[in-house]
Amino acid sequence: MSKTNRENGAAEIISIGDELLIGQVINSNASWMGEHLFMYGIPLRRVTTIGDSVSELHQALDEALGRVQFVFLTGGLGPTSDDITKPALCSYFDVSLVYNRQAYEQVEALFARRGMRVTERNMQQAYLPSNCTAIENSNGTAPGMWFEQDDAVIVSMPGVPFEMKPMLLEKVIPEILRRFSTSKFLFKTVMTMGVGESMLADRIKEWENALPAGFKLAYLPQPGIVRLRIGGQSDNVESLQNQINELVQSLCKLIPEYVYGFDNEMPEEALGKILVSNGLTISTAESCTGGYLSHLFTSIPGSSRYFVGSVVAYDNMVKEKVLGVSGESLELEGAVSEVVAKQMATGVRNLLGTDLAIATTGIAGPDGGSPEKPVGTVWIAIAGEAFVIAERFQLGEHRERNIRRAALTAFNMLRSVLKQ
Amino acid sequence: MSKTNRENGAAEIISIGDELLIGQVINSNASWMGEHLFMYGIPLRRVTTIGDSVSELHQALDEALGRVQFVFLTGGLGPTSDDITKPALCSYFDVSLVYNRQAYEQVEALFARRGMRVTERNMQQAYLPSNCTAIENSNGTAPGMWFEQDDAVIVSMPGVPFEMKPMLLEKVIPEILRRFSTSKFLFKTVMTMGVGESMLADRIKEWENALPAGFKLAYLPQPGIVRLRIGGQSDNVESLQNQINELVQSLCKLIPEYVYGFDNEMPEEALGKILVSNGLTISTAESCTGGYLSHLFTSIPGSSRYFVGSVVAYDNMVKEKVLGVSGESLELEGAVSEVVAKQMATGVRNLLGTDLAIATTGIAGPDGGSPEKPVGTVWIAIAGEAFVIAERFQLGEHRERNIRRAALTAFNMLRSVLKQ
Repeated sequence: MSKTNRENGAAEIISIGDELLIGQVINSNASWMGEHLFMYGIPLRRVTTIGDSVSELHQALDEALGRVQFVFLTGGLGPTSDDITKPALCSYFDVSLVYNRQAYEQVEALFARRGMRVTERNMQQAYLPSNCTAIENSNGTAPGMWFEQDDAVIVSMPGVPFEMKPMLLEKVIPEILRRFSTSKFLFKTVMTMGVGESMLADRIKEWENALPAGFKLAYLPQPGIVRLRIGGQSDNVESLQNQINELVQSLCKLIPEYVYGFDNEMPEEALGKILVSNGLTISTAESCTGGYLSHLFTSIPGSSRYFVGSVVAYDNMVKEKVLGVSGESLELEGAVSEVVAKQMATGVRNLLGTDLAIATTGIAGPDGGSPEKPVGTVWIAIAGEAFVIAERFQLGEHRERNIRRAALTAFNMLRSVLKQ
Repeated sequence: MSKTNRENGAAEIISIGDELLIGQVINSNASWMGEHLFMYGIPLRRVTTIGDSVSELHQALDEALGRVQFVFLTGGLGPTSDDITKPALCSYFDVSLVYNRQAYEQVEALFARRGMRVTERNMQQAYLPSNCTAIENSNGTAPGMWFEQDDAVIVSMPGVPFEMKPMLLEKVIPEILRRFSTSKFLFKTVMTMGVGESMLADRIKEWENALPAGFKLAYLPQPGIVRLRIGGQSDNVESLQNQINELVQSLCKLIPEYVYGFDNEMPEEALGKILVSNGLTISTAESCTGGYLSHLFTSIPGSSRYFVGSVVAYDNMVKEKVLGVSGESLELEGAVSEVVAKQMATGVRNLLGTDLAIATTGIAGPDGGSPEKPVGTVWIAIAGEAFVIAERFQLGEHRERNIRRAALTAFNMLRSVLKQ
């Protein structure tokens, strides 16, 4: 391997596994790793995905070590014979597998916690290439492996995301920073909803351009949500923390109507906390969202403290019979109308005796649209003790996305109500 | 580029874009392409993901063309300046951009369909490297590009999945097969549920081992579902189609209790068809699934023909007041019990006047478990005109997965009922 032209401080990933090449598994590990390496100032230059082949791995390692200082391998570490990473690393470094007591004790401790005894096959996992340091795997039996050669670091980790992620975050990145960097890194993520990436960028352009040296902003969009991650790098952790806090505060002041939480909190989780702290209960009456709003609320552990129930009134008969929507309103205004949305919200609120209620009624598509109410037309209503409000939205053309956007729009309306 | 050691008929992918390396976007294109190339007998040997860098692309191209015959590039084709693929390909082949009339007419036709006129910026997209053939993009303005050199083929496609996928399937793969292969490929996917991959493999082992030459089976697992794809390759399409049909029939006979559909149909879609064809309506009463079952039913266009509505009875009060579950049963047996599941199913069936009803009640976790009813305990009931059945299941430890598995288990029970 050549050290010429090698970029110190930069990284590459080699993802190993036939299942990645024939499309059985999406390589989500690599993008997760890229996101977190970037956070800690370790730029990722390339991801190479190869099958379960010793010669391919040797070739990919040679190439990567000619280009960067840190090479991260994932996959191929299971106890079965098609997992080639360990033998391939032995032949690459020209070493043998030796019994690693530390690795054995870690596997033994994991099995003890699960009330099981170590099997012969798992015992094999304590044999590691003689030139590596074992990295503890807190969620599985295959230890990670840390190799060093010519100032380069090669780290081999399991491919199971549940095992790889804590290993990278808690063991590998801290060790790299400790050994190869004097800087500290800190981050805070501001969660926004109800606004697109480009409009956000316009609103905070000046703030972003005025970011002090060593700080950066990343836009991380998800369906219906944009995460804004502010990261900073410094030798002094305390002043860094203060600076990040100040930047977050000044950012939030620019876009208060869109910020709903921090650090990857989902809207349904943030709303749940507000409901709990105000001692409020909620119910939903769903037509176009068809139970999705209720599903999001109940996906949060402990949601039974505030979420009482939902009536999915898909058929108009259910709107009339269970929620008490008037047949006249349905006939005159149609199911997708302000009056029906409001009657649904007050109806479910009365039926289930909750403090608040949300109702949705709309045309998710692909059929059912008309010139006055095209596909994507949605009415959302919120009812409380002394009020009921409703708003009309025009979403898109795709059923799945319309359902998702209607639910997020309803959350956004609820957030406005709860802030008042 | 070297032709030594090149594997003819094999492919590599080069995915281009900074957003892939910093984790803003997951490289799902590569796995989708890998799955479809594999289907058509074009083995994918490597995926290389690089940033928006001309020199990186040149290097990756050199390397890939030394190893395989077909190199597929995705990304970097937009009209903005950070999209480097076109200039990088010009310098790689030492050619210039020239006006491509065919490409211009395609862009013009696309804009005409959308009732828009071509802008100056989009006009630029009709300038292509002089040595390429334009590939029509039916869903966007950036044409694909087909290059040939030393018996190798280099194809550049947009990174937007919605544009790339039809281009690969409808233009690129057919042209490769036409030019470089005499074989025809056909596939059929058998959809199974209610069984794991390894148990399936045991059940069909002999059938799989007896597959005729030129045929192969792929296991494609998704949460709660295993897809079995049978593919064959032959010079004679008609006999190939007959053979595939026969293999599918003999496979289905081995595992009739698990097969619910074909060709990527979801369970909620397959069940919807059975309900429609039998003229049956259905409703749900959900506790632990919290609206997810209803959400899956209503995610299918046209589900209003058979899905009437749902009562999400998260709080026991809703079970009593809306569904008519007896307070005594709730007190004596608890909400997670056979009697309550059955009363929920009959209750919602009576309330909404449907032919069939499903009820779920269980402990999704992480809290709420007990020694007799640990987290993951779920009762599912189905009620019809003259019957109500219920079954207890022990699912896992994770809330999100328990909700998903409970819904799929309910679908599986419904399927058994509908088959009788």
